[in-house]
Amino acid sequence: MNPYDELESRFARQGAIEEAIQFLHWDAAAMMPRGGAASRAGQLATLRVVAHEELTRPDMADLLAAAEEDAGNRLDQWQRANLREMRRRWRHAAAVPADLVAALSEARSQSEGAWRAARPADDFAAALPGLERVLELTREAAAAKAAALGTGPYEALLDQYEPGGRVAEIDRLFADIEAFLPALLAAALERQAARPAPPEPHGPFPPAAQRRAARMLVERVGFDFAHGRLDESAHPFTGGTPDDVRLTTRYDAADPAKALMAALHECGHGLYKRGLPATWRRQPVGAARGMAVHESQSLLVEMQMCRSRAFAGFAAPLLSEIFGGEATAWQPEALYRRQIRVRPGPIRVDADEVTYPAHVILRYRLERAMVAGDLLPRDLPAAFNDGLKAAIGVTPPSDRDGVLQDIHWYDGYWGYFPTYTLGAVIAAQLFAAARAALPGLDDAIGGGQFAALLGWLKRHIHEKGSLFATGELIEAATGTPLAVAAFERHLRQRYLA
Amino acid sequence: MNPYDELESRFARQGAIEEAIQFLHWDAAAMMPRGGAASRAGQLATLRVVAHEELTRPDMADLLAAAEEDAGNRLDQWQRANLREMRRRWRHAAAVPADLVAALSEARSQSEGAWRAARPADDFAAALPGLERVLELTREAAAAKAAALGTGPYEALLDQYEPGGRVAEIDRLFADIEAFLPALLAAALERQAARPAPPEPHGPFPPAAQRRAARMLVERVGFDFAHGRLDESAHPFTGGTPDDVRLTTRYDAADPAKALMAALHECGHGLYKRGLPATWRRQPVGAARGMAVHESQSLLVEMQMCRSRAFAGFAAPLLSEIFGGEATAWQPEALYRRQIRVRPGPIRVDADEVTYPAHVILRYRLERAMVAGDLLPRDLPAAFNDGLKAAIGVTPPSDRDGVLQDIHWYDGYWGYFPTYTLGAVIAAQLFAAARAALPGLDDAIGGGQFAALLGWLKRHIHEKGSLFATGELIEAATGTPLAVAAFERHLRQRYLA
Repeated sequence: MNPYDELESRFARQGAIEEAIQFLHWDAAAMMPRGGAASRAGQLATLRVVAHEELTRPDMADLLAAAEEDAGNRLDQWQRANLREMRRRWRHAAAVPADLVAALSEARSQSEGAWRAARPADDFAAALPGLERVLELTREAAAAKAAALGTGPYEALLDQYEPGGRVAEIDRLFADIEAFLPALLAAALERQAARPAPPEPHGPFPPAAQRRAARMLVERVGFDFAHGRLDESAHPFTGGTPDDVRLTTRYDAADPAKALMAALHECGHGLYKRGLPATWRRQPVGAARGMAVHESQSLLVEMQMCRSRAFAGFAAPLLSEIFGGEATAWQPEALYRRQIRVRPGPIRVDADEVTYPAHVILRYRLERAMVAGDLLPRDLPAAFNDGLKAAIGVTPPSDRDGVLQDIHWYDGYWGYFPTYTLGAVIAAQLFAAARAALPGLDDAIGGGQFAALLGWLKRHIHEKGSLFATGELIEAATGTPLAVAAFERHLRQRYLA
Repeated sequence: MNPYDELESRFARQGAIEEAIQFLHWDAAAMMPRGGAASRAGQLATLRVVAHEELTRPDMADLLAAAEEDAGNRLDQWQRANLREMRRRWRHAAAVPADLVAALSEARSQSEGAWRAARPADDFAAALPGLERVLELTREAAAAKAAALGTGPYEALLDQYEPGGRVAEIDRLFADIEAFLPALLAAALERQAARPAPPEPHGPFPPAAQRRAARMLVERVGFDFAHGRLDESAHPFTGGTPDDVRLTTRYDAADPAKALMAALHECGHGLYKRGLPATWRRQPVGAARGMAVHESQSLLVEMQMCRSRAFAGFAAPLLSEIFGGEATAWQPEALYRRQIRVRPGPIRVDADEVTYPAHVILRYRLERAMVAGDLLPRDLPAAFNDGLKAAIGVTPPSDRDGVLQDIHWYDGYWGYFPTYTLGAVIAAQLFAAARAALPGLDDAIGGGQFAALLGWLKRHIHEKGSLFATGELIEAATGTPLAVAAFERHLRQRYLA
């Protein structure tokens, strides 16, 4: 076997193990009884070690070098991109010594456990030692990865979630957002306050009916239940594999919109996963491009499409039929206006799309400062509260609803936060391009016809897998480099027009 | 690390991979959408290869030999038994060359697929080539394992499911059963015919109500839902691990007894799994003793306990409350008599406990003859039909309800069948011993009190794991060597007294 083919065969095997990890993780969140937690942790840890060993076998460096040597002669575009992604994955895996991998894994588990207890108790001090330990080891890993990747330490962490991501570009995009957002938020709130609030439907909304509604909506939007499921978990997420996509949502009997929008958000992730190039299953080039593009697909479905006036026209009569109750509350315009309500608050995951970027930009700056050593975890609560107050005028009423609200830092997901807002920016740019390419798109959405949009996304994003860098992918799909212009236009149109 | 400790650590890792396989298998049967099948097959195949590689690393033979050398000095009884089981597993894994493992795995998958199509089509010819190929490779593997284990080829296959099982003992037990069964069956049928049939409840019995009833019954019997689940699958089975036991059943809207008895049967398997020695998780000595003992636990719960008159007294009012309808049909005596109805028929899985052994003994003889080369697959349908006619006077109306009814041979489970009836024999002997040890057991069962029986089973069977050989385990628990006497007494008592 030539070196490239040998690598493909190794990554296929490694990919199958990664898929197994996906399902064990989904099961832990959606199915597992609480008594299974300890043994599940052991199963996942073992499979992760095995997957890591597969990726860092002693001869991998030679195989990669040999395959790269004659890549120009024998490999086509997809194979070359695959080899590039193999190299990237290997760099991440091989950069960190095995004992640091183990120490970090252990520290993340312990810290996450401490956080689970500390958050409801509103006890930041109880979570602090774990956070400090995770940060210490994360900085060590970041330094090792930075040396291997030729980036800065924060960029090396970012690269795990957003391959090729650069702080200079994120700084520029986030500065552009900050240049218009405060004034836009103030204007949107003023305009919203000047109008009567939309009527509210009154529950209860039984979970069984919500489940029916969620299933119907994601199926109409294009989710294929022959290749996926929709279940419940404490935190909605998308797991599984391209051929077997596992969505979850959660049901609040008082408010069906939460479960439905969460299901549609995850549906966007799921459509992306399902649409990844079928010929490249389990190969690095067949994987999603990164978490920014992934989030763009969920936000395009949720924010751009499903919170649009057109979608409200489609969904309102269906929801009225399922939930019954007051007819006025299920008028399309009432539904639409509830879906685009702006309400600055302390909690990121409950934030509307206007204030959401402020939550993310704050976290991005704080985590960069912590990775750089310029901010200590013990000083984080004050920095967090001051930052949120400065950004959207809200002071968290407690650490529970402040610095303890997100799992990310405690569980070791450093460098992940910026992908949320990058995703929102990409989603707006893609949706604008799709609208330009597909005349009558709003009418189609209003009529419950989503195939044309989904086809456009498949062709331009899903089926490209990791063939291109994020910037190339977006520019090829939309004709312009990634910028915040479309996002700003979208917000102005929706909240101020 | 000394050799024994190194082995424990390797088996712990291998055991975690085996656990992952369990959950992927459960998911495939209970949760997976049909579009996930192909990629799941790849995940399972990969994990099985990895698990096999772990077990057959080049230095395993030396490690085992070194650990055995000073076992007498440093190891306690459990450790020595663990080492014995490690050696047994290694022998099985190492005996068969990797290319034969791969060829057999591939042949089993293909044959099982052909069988899935051939069975509903009643087309034995379509399943024959796959069956022939599986048998050919199975005979090769059996010869290799026989050489490694020092047994005959059939015994080497049997040893995979019933460690240490010997055909001489099975022949003796099965001959003892055949000595009394035909006359007992005839007498039971005559006695049954002389009495009016018990009244039947009339449905429909909505799956939701059946689900509630099944959950309530298995929980009352002792199943711990903090460490397990009960779901649906086409064929009821027990999966998962001791800390996370996954039971399944299936619901027939016309007949709730099927789902409930299947759930209670699986509950017996699940209680065994849950009760395995906690300090030996993922070690070979901590595993179930074999499929005969496993089946004894399911049959003890289902046949010995839950089809007893005492249990009917406990369950009838609960089922009447859940299903409603005619009061007479939910009288304890009516329920009991429906549960012990004898009805010779062609289908093994629908068979009552009197005719069941005849189904198993026939298959045992046929598969032994095929492994020996004395019976060719193409002659199987005639041999099967003649054999069943001779045993219980029933001729299968078709191959679909004859030689195609069971997946075992087509999917490569050769040597498995005898464990069903060994399990029934063991169950009867254990239940008789428990009854002798626990005065008032029938009253307790009638009152819905199962803790004493479960405690006895835990102490004598579950917590012993694989410490002893099957025969030693049964003799230690019951005071007598394994024999059919208790099984015969049980049948006479229930069907003729």
